[in-house]
Amino acid sequence: MGKLLIVGTVAFDAIETPFGKTDKILGGAATFIGLAAAQFSLESAIVSIVGDDFPQSYLDLLKNKGIDISGIEIVKNGKTFFWKGKYHNDLNSRDTLITDLNVLADFDPKVPANFKDADVLMLGNLHPSVQLSVIQQMEEKPKLIALDTMNFWMNNTLAELKEVIRHTDVITINDEEARQLTNEYSLVKAAQKIQSMGPKYVVIKKGEHGALLFHDDDVFFAPALPLEEIFDPTGAGDTFAGGFVGHIAETENISFHNLRNAVIHGSNLASFCVEKFGTERMQHLSKEEVSRRLNQFKQLTQFDIELQ
Amino acid sequence: MGKLLIVGTVAFDAIETPFGKTDKILGGAATFIGLAAAQFSLESAIVSIVGDDFPQSYLDLLKNKGIDISGIEIVKNGKTFFWKGKYHNDLNSRDTLITDLNVLADFDPKVPANFKDADVLMLGNLHPSVQLSVIQQMEEKPKLIALDTMNFWMNNTLAELKEVIRHTDVITINDEEARQLTNEYSLVKAAQKIQSMGPKYVVIKKGEHGALLFHDDDVFFAPALPLEEIFDPTGAGDTFAGGFVGHIAETENISFHNLRNAVIHGSNLASFCVEKFGTERMQHLSKEEVSRRLNQFKQLTQFDIELQ
Repeated sequence: MGKLLIVGTVAFDAIETPFGKTDKILGGAATFIGLAAAQFSLESAIVSIVGDDFPQSYLDLLKNKGIDISGIEIVKNGKTFFWKGKYHNDLNSRDTLITDLNVLADFDPKVPANFKDADVLMLGNLHPSVQLSVIQQMEEKPKLIALDTMNFWMNNTLAELKEVIRHTDVITINDEEARQLTNEYSLVKAAQKIQSMGPKYVVIKKGEHGALLFHDDDVFFAPALPLEEIFDPTGAGDTFAGGFVGHIAETENISFHNLRNAVIHGSNLASFCVEKFGTERMQHLSKEEVSRRLNQFKQLTQFDIELQ
Repeated sequence: MGKLLIVGTVAFDAIETPFGKTDKILGGAATFIGLAAAQFSLESAIVSIVGDDFPQSYLDLLKNKGIDISGIEIVKNGKTFFWKGKYHNDLNSRDTLITDLNVLADFDPKVPANFKDADVLMLGNLHPSVQLSVIQQMEEKPKLIALDTMNFWMNNTLAELKEVIRHTDVITINDEEARQLTNEYSLVKAAQKIQSMGPKYVVIKKGEHGALLFHDDDVFFAPALPLEEIFDPTGAGDTFAGGFVGHIAETENISFHNLRNAVIHGSNLASFCVEKFGTERMQHLSKEEVSRRLNQFKQLTQFDIELQ
């Protein structure tokens, strides 16, 4: 049972999909990562920032999941980061309608003393210099540093992003971002290039088409569970990342073999996240449901061809 | 060791990809299906039509793979079906530049007497009334009738296509076609609707994103092998179908369990097809190469999470 430190946004989301819309609800990368990781036996903490408009009930929700929230700074008279987005009919793309950085604009992360020795550090999507600051605050190098990022930072802060990438062991990135970062269309070649930039493991997320884990010349593939209906994709990538690092922190094992299982856990949890708006499904997810769906993943992918 | 009857085009293709272009080379759905199926222990025959401009060397190539070509009609003074296409840079889409039906316009298929009792009938992409004619010529119902088709027939001969679909046990179709045929965006729902139209098995091909096999409430997923370079996607879907029915004909087993293995064999062979232009890679493919890559598929997808 290891320690997992999560850095990322804790935020308000307002979401519109073909199936409905929400007012401001609980969102943010660190929130989704934390809720997914809470499915595992581990100690976890979130480093983030919110305004005093952020409901205590949301903070309690995270606390009640066993997440240490002492690293979530509450800014007096500050407003919490707010994102509003609208998904297109196929749910594969979306328009961002509002991004109010608010207190996030001046986020100076502070790692709680008792998590400076975390086994696994998950850097959620944030400004690379914030991510780097957290790495520098660690007392000893974590067993695994995982990084999530997005095209925005490639467009605007590429040098800082590359510096963070150099310090990480595994990067989770979507297919288009992997192509943009490397100028390679082939994901196999893109993953090779990214490995040469630092991370020994590369996870490329393909949304409804699953995720690929690369390490040296090895590759592992976790499908997304085919669902009748995807209700709201918000947070699916972060939930994937949370399941991924959650399993690694629980097992304290960073072998390729164990990371294969970790991407399955990530895919499994992400398949729940998309079934309801925001964090709704993840708030009330039982171990039995998780276990039953893991069995579906096994049925989905396992075959028994005898090799000669 | 069962009997496999293949109906489909034997044709000339001219292909342009970002990596190069070809003059008229050997192509056609039945050709790719037959070459893939030739990797298995079975008796196979092709029913098709060509003109007398079709080189004897191409016919010999099929014959030397053990395929019965007595059902390939050669039309005197006729010209062979010709397709010319150009792939876009991402290789995921293409423009058809030329489609010369030629002798295919009046194709009246004749099933050889010794294949009217075939165990597996593979109906390659063709006019549905041609496919139906072949079904009607069978002396007894094959253990499995598999159908491939495309959006062209949905747009132009939907009633006839639905009649053929009613008579088939498994349909192989790509994701966009499945959506068009059913007006369902969700592939899970699309597969359910297609099952209600006749086939008890539905295979949805997603190109580089793999293939899904549906049966009642069960689903199985075969990934596509992540490749450094896709050289020419022509024939990949037909090669997949050939590996799929080839395995079924060899094993004479149409259980869902065995069909899972069949889609893996299909994906495996398709991964070779795209490595060179047209049929080039499939012409000289050894059992050792096939077996080695099956092992890669196992490495790609198998995991060992213990379920509680």
